[in-house]
Amino acid sequence: MSVARSALDAGVVTIVGLGLIGGSIARGLRATGFAGELRGAVETEADAARALALGLVDSAGVDPAQAVANADLVILAIPVGAIGSLLANLRRALPARAVITDTGSTKLGVIRDARAGLGEDIGRFVPGHPIAGTEGSGLEAGFAELYRHRRVILTPTPETDPDALHRVEQLWSVLGARVSEMDAAHHDEVLAATSHVPHVLAFALVDTLARMAERTEIFEYAAGGFADFTRIASSDPALWGGIVGANRDAILPVLDRYMGKLAHLRQAIEQGDQTCLIDCFSRAKQARDRFTEDQDKP
Amino acid sequence: MSVARSALDAGVVTIVGLGLIGGSIARGLRATGFAGELRGAVETEADAARALALGLVDSAGVDPAQAVANADLVILAIPVGAIGSLLANLRRALPARAVITDTGSTKLGVIRDARAGLGEDIGRFVPGHPIAGTEGSGLEAGFAELYRHRRVILTPTPETDPDALHRVEQLWSVLGARVSEMDAAHHDEVLAATSHVPHVLAFALVDTLARMAERTEIFEYAAGGFADFTRIASSDPALWGGIVGANRDAILPVLDRYMGKLAHLRQAIEQGDQTCLIDCFSRAKQARDRFTEDQDKP
Repeated sequence: MSVARSALDAGVVTIVGLGLIGGSIARGLRATGFAGELRGAVETEADAARALALGLVDSAGVDPAQAVANADLVILAIPVGAIGSLLANLRRALPARAVITDTGSTKLGVIRDARAGLGEDIGRFVPGHPIAGTEGSGLEAGFAELYRHRRVILTPTPETDPDALHRVEQLWSVLGARVSEMDAAHHDEVLAATSHVPHVLAFALVDTLARMAERTEIFEYAAGGFADFTRIASSDPALWGGIVGANRDAILPVLDRYMGKLAHLRQAIEQGDQTCLIDCFSRAKQARDRFTEDQDKP
Repeated sequence: MSVARSALDAGVVTIVGLGLIGGSIARGLRATGFAGELRGAVETEADAARALALGLVDSAGVDPAQAVANADLVILAIPVGAIGSLLANLRRALPARAVITDTGSTKLGVIRDARAGLGEDIGRFVPGHPIAGTEGSGLEAGFAELYRHRRVILTPTPETDPDALHRVEQLWSVLGARVSEMDAAHHDEVLAATSHVPHVLAFALVDTLARMAERTEIFEYAAGGFADFTRIASSDPALWGGIVGANRDAILPVLDRYMGKLAHLRQAIEQGDQTCLIDCFSRAKQARDRFTEDQDKP
């Protein structure tokens, strides 16, 4: 992480939500030597005190309207379902120059809600999604390097102001991320496949096994493969309930294809059709190995 | 790893199969200062030459009967489906004192096959399964520390000779593993839940997405959560086809419960039943977090 003064061209940055995502932005900006003012809005006074004690921000409170006064850049790091009503409430308090962005895992729903909340101010809102995270949550979960070498997808609308877009690109570049733009609907399809459906599958497996585990010590004999496979099932349940609900239309087709594949494999297992199993497993291994090779590329 | 002379009370150890599992046993024994003779049996002359070049064993060849001559301990680190016929072929070549064990991920089928192959010599066979591994395979995949602090389950039969059992316990203790005993049927149920079904689910997901990925760049935007979730889909396809085929009876009930859970969640997603989603996700997170805490215990 550079120790040079942060290149972020914004005097006052307000982060609403200082959990894993927002807290990592705060830590990341600090680590780059950001010289402006960092403000946080959180849910409880206790969290505000803790955020200050952790040194995440220069000031913290529970009133988002107060936190965005004089802000140049407002980052909404809150659950996707909370963005619309917050923006509607904040609209009067937002300074005319303020650029607003979010970090939500779905984009079509966020854009619809933001448009309803901001009305003709929608051009100042830059929909964004950092493809980074861990299964952690809460004020302590973040870390300065979370976004380094990670992708951030911005899904500007026709109304998005180019200067606002540039300001948000700059934010993520300062944090070390690689920024690209994408159509919001395409974003939601891609993320349904590689993130939302996998979360549903992992939650479903652990919930299934938890009932078995009441009767036996199955988890005691689980190895590293199981720990990796189920890691995302330790993610925040309410946050993920919101994401899955918001991206229903993109998730259902992927889930249906997956359930069809599983039914096919179940039949192969029952009938002892080894060829079918090994064919499927081989195609999967090939695709997974290719993915890993691509990830390892600089 | 201790640099003291290995405490393994065996002069000649033959490992049939020097992939991830067998290769790690060989490396682990070397690292503990095992002073006896290490022999390997592999499938091709090229692999035998490579195993020698890697220093895995003192001698290597493609004839298992030759490799077990004068052996005190024979470790079968080969796919579960290959164990029965190999034992039948080896029976005459095995020295009377040789203890035999395996490393297969299913145990009822292996015991049935071993009983058929060894006949009244079945008491010398100690069915075993190290709960350790990576998605890697092949001669280069192993490492000396693979079994450190890992669990190894032995599933002795009524006929199992106590001295043979003790010898195999000693092997795994020397490699740093924690050894426990379990009924073979129970082993197969537990492993179906925490290993075999998760592998099927991961292979199924990547195979499903691979078809989508032909049309779009979905994998490009996959993050660490996806990499972890699909890691086991890079495992050896033929090996896992064999395991899943061999443990069909324990796998199908778990798979059915899982598919029922998934159908239930699908309905909740379609109907926008957030309470149902969050309840399921919360139960899963609780169970997963408890599992992680237990894993972190010394």
